[in-house]
Amino acid sequence: MDQSDLQAPTWQLSERARKLTSSAIREILKVTERPEVISFAGGLPSPATFPAERMREASDWILRHDPAAALQYSATEGYLPLREWIAARYSANGAAKGAANGAAIRASQVLITTGSQQALDLLGKVLICKDSPVLVETPTYLGALQSFSMYEPHYVQVPTDENGLIPEALTPDLTAGARLLYAQPNFQNPTGRRLPLERRRALAAFAKTAPFPVIEDDPYGALDYAGEPLPTMLSMSPDHIVHLGSFSKVLAPGLRIGYIIAPEELHFKLVQAKQATDLHTPSFTQRIVHEVVKDGFLDTHVPTIRALYRDQCAAMLASLERYMPEGVSWNRPEGGMFVWVTLPAQMNSMKLLEEAVAQNVAFVPGGPFFANEAQHNTLRLSFVTVSPTKIDEGVAKLAALIRARI
Amino acid sequence: MDQSDLQAPTWQLSERARKLTSSAIREILKVTERPEVISFAGGLPSPATFPAERMREASDWILRHDPAAALQYSATEGYLPLREWIAARYSANGAAKGAANGAAIRASQVLITTGSQQALDLLGKVLICKDSPVLVETPTYLGALQSFSMYEPHYVQVPTDENGLIPEALTPDLTAGARLLYAQPNFQNPTGRRLPLERRRALAAFAKTAPFPVIEDDPYGALDYAGEPLPTMLSMSPDHIVHLGSFSKVLAPGLRIGYIIAPEELHFKLVQAKQATDLHTPSFTQRIVHEVVKDGFLDTHVPTIRALYRDQCAAMLASLERYMPEGVSWNRPEGGMFVWVTLPAQMNSMKLLEEAVAQNVAFVPGGPFFANEAQHNTLRLSFVTVSPTKIDEGVAKLAALIRARI
Repeated sequence: MDQSDLQAPTWQLSERARKLTSSAIREILKVTERPEVISFAGGLPSPATFPAERMREASDWILRHDPAAALQYSATEGYLPLREWIAARYSANGAAKGAANGAAIRASQVLITTGSQQALDLLGKVLICKDSPVLVETPTYLGALQSFSMYEPHYVQVPTDENGLIPEALTPDLTAGARLLYAQPNFQNPTGRRLPLERRRALAAFAKTAPFPVIEDDPYGALDYAGEPLPTMLSMSPDHIVHLGSFSKVLAPGLRIGYIIAPEELHFKLVQAKQATDLHTPSFTQRIVHEVVKDGFLDTHVPTIRALYRDQCAAMLASLERYMPEGVSWNRPEGGMFVWVTLPAQMNSMKLLEEAVAQNVAFVPGGPFFANEAQHNTLRLSFVTVSPTKIDEGVAKLAALIRARI
Repeated sequence: MDQSDLQAPTWQLSERARKLTSSAIREILKVTERPEVISFAGGLPSPATFPAERMREASDWILRHDPAAALQYSATEGYLPLREWIAARYSANGAAKGAANGAAIRASQVLITTGSQQALDLLGKVLICKDSPVLVETPTYLGALQSFSMYEPHYVQVPTDENGLIPEALTPDLTAGARLLYAQPNFQNPTGRRLPLERRRALAAFAKTAPFPVIEDDPYGALDYAGEPLPTMLSMSPDHIVHLGSFSKVLAPGLRIGYIIAPEELHFKLVQAKQATDLHTPSFTQRIVHEVVKDGFLDTHVPTIRALYRDQCAAMLASLERYMPEGVSWNRPEGGMFVWVTLPAQMNSMKLLEEAVAQNVAFVPGGPFFANEAQHNTLRLSFVTVSPTKIDEGVAKLAALIRARI
């Protein structure tokens, strides 16, 4: 066969694929894999928190006692005992965060997804038409923009302040024709902001009359440092909120287990879409998660993650305080993995990243987190995988670079 | 909170979601979960073939020696050693099926997917625009229709005969504007047909000049009963064929590990689309597969699966011969999991299914496997999870029902 006599093929791609561009930031951040780089760029949880031995025991048990089911095709909806566990945890009698008002969540509302990222893809598939408006926070989670963009929406930025999304901004004008509103109320990626109780109530009330779902994406809710979670919006409007959860930040992300809690009618459409997307999430990893969590493991495990992140967050805040020049501001997160930094207005964090990487420090510039008009003088710092000593060293270097540019 | 004072929400769905309808067949086939039902309906491999103990050892080893990496986020492209193993197996020096002509496949062409089903979703995402033509076999794999339909193509059926797709039928008129041609050359689902060598050559040559990719979906290639595989089209036109593979039929489907081998330019777009879809396939399950297969395990394991399926296929063919009335025809598969049965022209296999289920026998009617005009007098029988005794009993019952309708 003469396989080299023709050029590489140029096939016509879909419109959505043609819009996909290579990320300049991703290219720059490739250097962060070098061990000498102090990286505040990662969204990765600390591997120190992974309960590997517990998972090994669970895997062993499952493959000894139930291998045929764990290795076979299984239901698109997910492993029923895990769905039941999740429903119970969110309901009154579970030990759940945010279940204060006794809203009952049914297993029939729970769909297991291949990570939270897939939940976003499925919601895009089922809700978004080309050019239909989609409401997002300012800024918002980059991964959600990537997922939704595959369905070519028209993004509408909802105004925010230091407490997150401003419910009063959701005027009929702004929300006209919207297919969904996407929000992360707990320790948002990238800003680390937490939506206050009154705003949750206002947004949950808004959801009850809105002609589109409010998506409450909650990967970081369990990581509140004080152990005093605010109630979820799901608990306030259980029939009008679509809630996304994940085991990535409380167990381990490499298993890719997330979930969607949705009203049954939408749930049913999401199941059909998931069937067309990957049939089902791996049977084995779902069983591992269930085996690990079913007897209350998270109640003792999650506090150890919280304590680690709280200390490292405190270290970063202290270093920022110590080194940053006037004109630089940042928030003080009450949980999660990120600090959001605002530079003087004229400064571009993308340029700063190039200089920082040359000095072996990395972070993520804020620009890509904005759906439309970007604030280029912002950046996201993660503190979860870096030791306090290295945090101090890295922040000092960053501060020197910023000072030199003021 | 007064959560019961409002009706369930009616949110506007995307056009693609509104087209999704509940499957009547799926509803009927729910009964096949009852143990008394003899089900020829499943596309499930036999759990008797799952190497559970081998997987237990692999899981144990990974979680003892490399837990931090196996449980962490990982590259969208997939686990590099597994990608390298796949590339080597398809290249000249690997022990690969169909690598006869020495085409070199590079790991940089391999993308690990969450099952083959996800490969279909990603190809749809990256190649199909609304209303663009997509070429499929007559009939074709139902899962591919489900995936592609999410991107709202216009299906064009390519004519087939008892040997599968007819390359001469791919006229400029038929293929005008097409975004892809989708085919399963080995023991196709649903027909069990294998594309002969000459047709493979013709189709591979066609791929070299076609302005769209030819997708060679090959989940069943290793399951040829005689152990005499025909070369893949990938080996004939390595730069112009997109090849899909899977470990579901040779190891276990519950791990959901498949792959796409594609020219680098398309590969890169597929990676971007996958990142938006589920970030990456679980790190842990990819490592399990690699750990199990890396030392040649499949070379001894797959022949045991072949032997099992060959015997059960022979049992089914013998029973069909024994009981079926004149006017009913079927093929004699040389591999795979399915026999395709054609009833007298006026007979509807959907009606037959209702009667069969009432007698505790199940199969899948052929209609849904046709993209456009369906041949309703067809049906698919799977023989892989049913014992020869039960095969005989089930086929006898089916034949009696058919006889009564002639």
